[in-house]
Amino acid sequence: MTVRPSSLVASFLLGSLAALSCVTSTPAQTAKPLNEVYQPEAKRLIAAALDDPDGYANLTYLCDHIGKRISGSEPLGRAITWSADLMRRDGLEHVTIQKVMVPHWVRGHESGSITTPVTKPLHMLGLGMSVGTPAAGIDAEIVVVRNFDELKKLGKTGVQGKIVVFNAPYEGYGKTVMYRVVGASEAAKLGAVAMLVRSITPLALQLPHTGTLEYEKDAPKIPAAAISLEDAMMLARLTSEGAPVKVHLQMDAHMEADAESGNVMGEIVGSEKPEEVVVLGGHIDSWDVGQGAQDDGSGIMATLEAVNLIKRLGLKPKRTIRIVFWVNEENGGTGGEAYRKALGEKVGNQVAAIEMDGGAEAPVGYGYGSPGSRRATPNGPAAAPELSDAEQHSLDLLKQVGILLEPLGAGTIRPGGGGSDIEPLMMAGVPGLGEMTNAAHYFDWHHTEADTIDKVDPVEFRKNVASLAVMTYILADMPERLAGHAGPGTEE
Amino acid sequence: MTVRPSSLVASFLLGSLAALSCVTSTPAQTAKPLNEVYQPEAKRLIAAALDDPDGYANLTYLCDHIGKRISGSEPLGRAITWSADLMRRDGLEHVTIQKVMVPHWVRGHESGSITTPVTKPLHMLGLGMSVGTPAAGIDAEIVVVRNFDELKKLGKTGVQGKIVVFNAPYEGYGKTVMYRVVGASEAAKLGAVAMLVRSITPLALQLPHTGTLEYEKDAPKIPAAAISLEDAMMLARLTSEGAPVKVHLQMDAHMEADAESGNVMGEIVGSEKPEEVVVLGGHIDSWDVGQGAQDDGSGIMATLEAVNLIKRLGLKPKRTIRIVFWVNEENGGTGGEAYRKALGEKVGNQVAAIEMDGGAEAPVGYGYGSPGSRRATPNGPAAAPELSDAEQHSLDLLKQVGILLEPLGAGTIRPGGGGSDIEPLMMAGVPGLGEMTNAAHYFDWHHTEADTIDKVDPVEFRKNVASLAVMTYILADMPERLAGHAGPGTEE
Repeated sequence: MTVRPSSLVASFLLGSLAALSCVTSTPAQTAKPLNEVYQPEAKRLIAAALDDPDGYANLTYLCDHIGKRISGSEPLGRAITWSADLMRRDGLEHVTIQKVMVPHWVRGHESGSITTPVTKPLHMLGLGMSVGTPAAGIDAEIVVVRNFDELKKLGKTGVQGKIVVFNAPYEGYGKTVMYRVVGASEAAKLGAVAMLVRSITPLALQLPHTGTLEYEKDAPKIPAAAISLEDAMMLARLTSEGAPVKVHLQMDAHMEADAESGNVMGEIVGSEKPEEVVVLGGHIDSWDVGQGAQDDGSGIMATLEAVNLIKRLGLKPKRTIRIVFWVNEENGGTGGEAYRKALGEKVGNQVAAIEMDGGAEAPVGYGYGSPGSRRATPNGPAAAPELSDAEQHSLDLLKQVGILLEPLGAGTIRPGGGGSDIEPLMMAGVPGLGEMTNAAHYFDWHHTEADTIDKVDPVEFRKNVASLAVMTYILADMPERLAGHAGPGTEE
Repeated sequence: MTVRPSSLVASFLLGSLAALSCVTSTPAQTAKPLNEVYQPEAKRLIAAALDDPDGYANLTYLCDHIGKRISGSEPLGRAITWSADLMRRDGLEHVTIQKVMVPHWVRGHESGSITTPVTKPLHMLGLGMSVGTPAAGIDAEIVVVRNFDELKKLGKTGVQGKIVVFNAPYEGYGKTVMYRVVGASEAAKLGAVAMLVRSITPLALQLPHTGTLEYEKDAPKIPAAAISLEDAMMLARLTSEGAPVKVHLQMDAHMEADAESGNVMGEIVGSEKPEEVVVLGGHIDSWDVGQGAQDDGSGIMATLEAVNLIKRLGLKPKRTIRIVFWVNEENGGTGGEAYRKALGEKVGNQVAAIEMDGGAEAPVGYGYGSPGSRRATPNGPAAAPELSDAEQHSLDLLKQVGILLEPLGAGTIRPGGGGSDIEPLMMAGVPGLGEMTNAAHYFDWHHTEADTIDKVDPVEFRKNVASLAVMTYILADMPERLAGHAGPGTEE
């Protein structure tokens, strides 16, 4: 999971729309509740999923034998080929690799250290999409701030020529991630020569967390890196002593030419309405550290296994189920955009989009979302949106499905949710669902060397598969369609 | 805190002694309980300690401005000089640096990686006192075992020429640390060319934990390193696939000539029995990673502040209180041995020894120990010893002190305890006390880059100071002496 800066902008735009019109079919008010209609299938799917080792085995192979796979990298190419083969072997139809051009950011060698008043290496990790330093590195005094207000108070006089360190205590990912995303440009506008951000995590164990940044068009591009919580706190302590604190930073980070890559797709073709599609998936790329196990190997392998189970049990949904492994979620979002663009005017046939991109800890349910509703804003996570009558009816239908997920502990259905990859679909009015977990430790490992397969509990993983299989099958088979938002006129 | 191999041997020897004689003064059975006698002083000491910022400020300086300080290193020398100055500034008497020769192990450059069937760097950290590899490194197939039994089953045929990986799940430090301490020689005896040990910690976050090893005299010395939990589990998964897994290991680790170093000591001279000494302290050296904050900067700075508070409040104990910052606890124990040796036959005047070497998390009380009672054995931590009548009486006296520590949550007094540095004293019959905390996270950080000052909570630190001040003052002032064990004829 990442926060796409463009989505942040989109959420601002959406926030200013006075009302959202809705497209939906007429509610069938007297219909039998979904939890009664689909109880037999749900029971079978859950039982099969909880007894199925295949999804976790696939995830283990992906993690151990392919590993980290940032956009443009060789292992991402292998992951894509392997995934398509996997879908074919599983007997999915229309398995294709949809061509997507992706940005190719390369970290290269990097290091940082305190040089004054003590000498000590920093536990650092450059931010994705950051520019590098000059070859000799940057040597500069630092200023440490806890928030944007403190930065503003320093002003150009206090910041010019310095390295700005954002030492913001973790107040939840959605809120604190802003320093990583826009901190570099905010600092650069005041004349900073580089930016260091305290890693966006609640856990201090000398582990830096990377993630993407966004440069503002009109601000100078300065190098930016995450540092461990320990190092950020140490820099704050040292500066509080009053004497100058200096840091050396060297980063080879740079952009190479965009690379050809792809979304991996496969289908179970619908028996009655094959043109109507329930799409689900996660993202196949990861950061260039760890194994991309929770983020988002677990998402793609759990959603695929959910589809496989529906197929293996011989269930034939009326609508088409399409699995997509979107590419380039972490630093660009071009996979999600390309998928939506390729649909053109047929986007209205996407009856629902489900994204799993919050790891495979214990599943708790689904967020039913409007575009931008799961996005961070400078004032914290966006509030849950107000629902139209049609949306409220759809929420009630989803709650009927939720009843079937209660044995998994995954029965919570709430408004607000989605995912970076399905955001372009949601902007075009497609109802979006974000699969939710308890995220007990997700941000301990997120975007680090520690996002490895051992963090994914096999039992919890299977519960996610079970929940996805039930939700996906019912959405593809139920009489009605969910209500979606009509997005703003211009989509991203 | 470390486990000293020589102490392990000592604990075996002691275990075989049928009975331990005791030296103590006659119990004064009708005396007023200590919790009544010393309540006013305890209240004053606790109130002062909880309101005292100085100890934590000293610890912060030690961590941030001196930092890690392994035996033989330049920062250890600075830490010693600074500590002696600190004791003088605080007005302690007889401040001296007692000369101690220490082993000088140097890590040098080191790296490890998986080379077959995938290529991936390992998160590794050489074990203290390990030999290095040849300059070109070692390339070998690995075998992964979970315990010594599995190693034995492999035998020479299975181990010869290979790198042995101990992937033992954490079952408490005292038990699991054996793989780190003796794993290299156990593997070498079967022909292994190197040893990797899963870090001795419950928390997987790609952080390797170092610590000392012991080479057996008759086994070849092979290089040994800790790896992260994640990497150990990955190696186990890869080998379980059946195909050969190979690792490259390169370590420059080596011993240099023993270095001159020292124990730092200072006193409050007793008002009535100055020749009788209550000694307390921790160790001034640390591993060559992190800041040595919990292990054992917190121990030396908390014990010193406890002594300072007694002095500052104008309390004049009958016996002498001596603070000692022992050197070389982590990889040799020569500081504790030198201190005991210098006492010669006067060791009987050491009426009690208190060590704080388990970090400064929330204090819970004290272990009242016999030699070796806190030591790990191959079958887990040694059992609490049986107490003689005199020892039971001493335990009862300590429990009276414990009542005064209850407001701190530190009122637990239990048999069994001590510390590496005071072990030589305890072997000579000196009653030993180990200051105990809840150790909620101690082994998450222990011997790693993450043992930094931010892990020490200022409020918990002050509670430790309070507890130590009360215990130390009462032991130095109370009418009786605690019962101690007479050690075996030959001390280490």
